[in-house]
Amino acid sequence: MLNKQECEKRQFQMCPKFEKTFEFLGKRWNGLIIDVLLEDGIQRFGELADKIPNISDRVLVERLKELEACGIVERIADEKNSKKVEYRLTAKGSDLQTAMKEIQNWAEKWMILSE
Amino acid sequence: MLNKQECEKRQFQMCPKFEKTFEFLGKRWNGLIIDVLLEDGIQRFGELADKIPNISDRVLVERLKELEACGIVERIADEKNSKKVEYRLTAKGSDLQTAMKEIQNWAEKWMILSE
Repeated sequence: MLNKQECEKRQFQMCPKFEKTFEFLGKRWNGLIIDVLLEDGIQRFGELADKIPNISDRVLVERLKELEACGIVERIADEKNSKKVEYRLTAKGSDLQTAMKEIQNWAEKWMILSE
Repeated sequence: MLNKQECEKRQFQMCPKFEKTFEFLGKRWNGLIIDVLLEDGIQRFGELADKIPNISDRVLVERLKELEACGIVERIADEKNSKKVEYRLTAKGSDLQTAMKEIQNWAEKWMILSE
């Protein structure tokens, strides 16, 4: 067993990058929005709203703005038709696929819903 | 572009197991507690408290109870000395290593702290 000084020397710092990643990945709906864009590629707002049951348009707008600010999602406006806006993952967002898959695998294997 | 009915047929459900996993992994301190146990193996309460700066004993007790209830951590009491309690990851907890590593890799590669 390490004494107090030895423990304090071995202090773990939560990598702020790691913590920030969890913050937005753990935020309600974000995982699902990323999942839809990973699976189905570029989407219009209406398609996202229809594919994610129970999410309000207001919350979807909010989340897309946050994901855009994080550089995870990019918004593509049509020059000829300003109403036609599409969303897709950036390279940064698409690179989440492996981590999301690992979490999904772990969850499938171990999580019991009654917990 | 899919029409409304086609989108609704392709509705994504957030796998509740996936969402629950994010819930506890994203909860403040849990990632760090798991990280210490992954890195340093079996730990006494005092060692955990000394290795994780800024966490109060009360919160550490609370989190350990939650992680125990989730089956991620197990508590080992010494028969001869009830005060001597140790904590370690279960097989379920240890299996988080790959997912945590993937998230860490992504965070290192992409996260910029000023965001």
